[in-house]
Amino acid sequence: MTESVLDYMTRLGRAAREASRVIGRASTAQKNRALEAAAAALDEARAELSAANELDLAAGRTNGLSPYMLERLTLTPERIDSMIVGLRQVASLADPIGAIRDMSFMPSGIQVGKMRVPLGVVGIIYESRPNVTIDAASLCLKSGNATILRGGSEAIHSNRAIATCIQRGLAAADLPAAVVQVVETTDREAVAALITMPEYVDVIVPRGGKGLIERVSRDARVPVIKHLDGICHVYVSAHADLESAYRICFNAKTYRYGICGAMETLLVDSAIAAAFLPTMAGQLIEKGVELRGCERTRALIDALPATEEDWNTEYLAPILSIKVVDGLDQAIEHINHYGSQHTDAIVTNHQGESRRFMAEVDSSSVMINAPTSFADGFEYGLGAEIGISTDKLHARGPVGLEGLTCEKYIVIGDGHQLRGQRPV
Amino acid sequence: MTESVLDYMTRLGRAAREASRVIGRASTAQKNRALEAAAAALDEARAELSAANELDLAAGRTNGLSPYMLERLTLTPERIDSMIVGLRQVASLADPIGAIRDMSFMPSGIQVGKMRVPLGVVGIIYESRPNVTIDAASLCLKSGNATILRGGSEAIHSNRAIATCIQRGLAAADLPAAVVQVVETTDREAVAALITMPEYVDVIVPRGGKGLIERVSRDARVPVIKHLDGICHVYVSAHADLESAYRICFNAKTYRYGICGAMETLLVDSAIAAAFLPTMAGQLIEKGVELRGCERTRALIDALPATEEDWNTEYLAPILSIKVVDGLDQAIEHINHYGSQHTDAIVTNHQGESRRFMAEVDSSSVMINAPTSFADGFEYGLGAEIGISTDKLHARGPVGLEGLTCEKYIVIGDGHQLRGQRPV
Repeated sequence: MTESVLDYMTRLGRAAREASRVIGRASTAQKNRALEAAAAALDEARAELSAANELDLAAGRTNGLSPYMLERLTLTPERIDSMIVGLRQVASLADPIGAIRDMSFMPSGIQVGKMRVPLGVVGIIYESRPNVTIDAASLCLKSGNATILRGGSEAIHSNRAIATCIQRGLAAADLPAAVVQVVETTDREAVAALITMPEYVDVIVPRGGKGLIERVSRDARVPVIKHLDGICHVYVSAHADLESAYRICFNAKTYRYGICGAMETLLVDSAIAAAFLPTMAGQLIEKGVELRGCERTRALIDALPATEEDWNTEYLAPILSIKVVDGLDQAIEHINHYGSQHTDAIVTNHQGESRRFMAEVDSSSVMINAPTSFADGFEYGLGAEIGISTDKLHARGPVGLEGLTCEKYIVIGDGHQLRGQRPV
Repeated sequence: MTESVLDYMTRLGRAAREASRVIGRASTAQKNRALEAAAAALDEARAELSAANELDLAAGRTNGLSPYMLERLTLTPERIDSMIVGLRQVASLADPIGAIRDMSFMPSGIQVGKMRVPLGVVGIIYESRPNVTIDAASLCLKSGNATILRGGSEAIHSNRAIATCIQRGLAAADLPAAVVQVVETTDREAVAALITMPEYVDVIVPRGGKGLIERVSRDARVPVIKHLDGICHVYVSAHADLESAYRICFNAKTYRYGICGAMETLLVDSAIAAAFLPTMAGQLIEKGVELRGCERTRALIDALPATEEDWNTEYLAPILSIKVVDGLDQAIEHINHYGSQHTDAIVTNHQGESRRFMAEVDSSSVMINAPTSFADGFEYGLGAEIGISTDKLHARGPVGLEGLTCEKYIVIGDGHQLRGQRPV
């Protein structure tokens, strides 16, 4: 193209801002009509989707993508099914927009409350999984936002084909095409432009590896909803039911090694370590998990020595670090020091302990007698998630529709005037 | 000091992080005890406060501070009274910490809800009004946060004297001194350090001129809750009650020219402009307000010609720009284009119009039949405010105790395991 990347992105940004006004005031019915029509369009376009995906896969093979990357890139019929189901699920979710809460009279006579509204324009930057295009577009649309999607260059043909289906959905509901825009260039400058246009973009959600997220956060001049590490702990207290603890820890570690909610460090109270660790270690070793323990752990079970680095590591692999601690205070201290404020759990039947753990562990999800693997938008009843935030401001933990909205104040008077002087 | 500024700030940061764990789990009674004791300490230290303030005023006179700056810097007995009252008011506010909402059972059997918790460590950077020290410290303390306060160098003696009283309050409640720390150096590097320590500081609130806020936002590596322009509009619709409109517009402009909620642009519907503008202009001119109008305005009243720049300007002065518009759509478009997303109002008795204005004007406060001057935490029932945010993420509009907190997910199970495979 003769247009510069910056001009192209500015054009997308301006169109998105304009479209955000339209989608922001669209009715729930209209938004659902677009989602349903996009689902139908995907269903009808299976052959086109597969052909486009085949182009990406062929290019990926030529460029030497790893088998793992190729697998993630593949649009199987089942994955197309699940995109269609996903669109219909988002259509069935309650519309958060327009809800007014806490409207009450003030001493002056005015009424003050809060109304939930869209953020405006959401920029999504993601790696090569094409289904993210549907997840992101549908959640943004339902929450009344315009969105600009920048997927990985490896998936460009698949993403364009998916975007065509979304466009059919928008057209069927008389919504402007710019409500969902896919960046058509694979030029890296497009990302640099997208994250530095606060006049057109209200928030950026990067989805992908830690490198991508750190780069985006560092360079962005637009707020970023981000997900960094998931160094999740389970603390088995002296008051734990041991049968429960085996189940919870086994599930937290082995449900799936690669999810951010997987347990990476097991903290065991010294009062029950001798009773608990041998059986637990046996189950994990049998499943193929490598154990790395502190000295007190290694006095009880076979484990490699854990180093300082282990307490700071998100393995995302069949490896577990284990530490014996003396009581709740030490456990909380370890978690708040080494953890990543993502998800941490306690196994205990002691009410006071669980109350303290809940209040004092500074993480986006704190769990009592449940495995950390539950940290997920679907499991939390959000219907879908656009990511899990490890930030404290705005959205914390799994981010669903509500995280893509904000609240503004609504003030209603009847010709009221402000009188008297407030202190300066 | 031989310690470098960076080392000094790191020491403050580390102490604040540690203290944040203690204040985060302090009981409501303990926090209130500290606030009440600090109020009593202020009351007893009036002579010390005045003496310290006199040092700042003398230095200010020597350094040629403007009379306006000197006035703001002065701690009159009335201002000391109002700091004492402010502390007691914050003590009387409901404690937001620990509230759990929406706890409900999920299909898997786990219970999921949200708990309100402190942000952790709040850094406040402000200019020379010493009473901000009390406002900021009391709101942060009540919301369970540790705080690092960096006031203007012109007020350093006053701020130290106030900090001493806060320390007496903390000591009386057995809370660590590091819950509230005042930066003792006036070196500018201290600000640079404070806003780039994400490991010790969770959020920065800059309070002061636009230059300060822009500088802090640009250089911060910590999230910033910020307040930029307040270019506020009142739109007088064709369906306005004119008597009401006179009252609202007059109050919005003249209640106080220097507040961020002051009306800067008046939009008048063409259908009522001829009936409305002459009387309105007469009242404003009599009060000493300079009027700048579009061509259609100037055909009806005496006014200077308004330029494009006027629509983009926050005067904070007895100046008002006036534009005649054709209907609600033009009014909303003008506001969303030229406004600063702060506070905008409509005067109308038409239900459908007010409904659309409320939904479609993209500002932190949207008002119906009330003057924009009401945009204030006290008027909104927040009890006190730490500032007014023009951001959309996290806190929008007046920020009270809730804006200094976040919510984490709470998950309670009973040995539940996650089964089945979620789609990747």
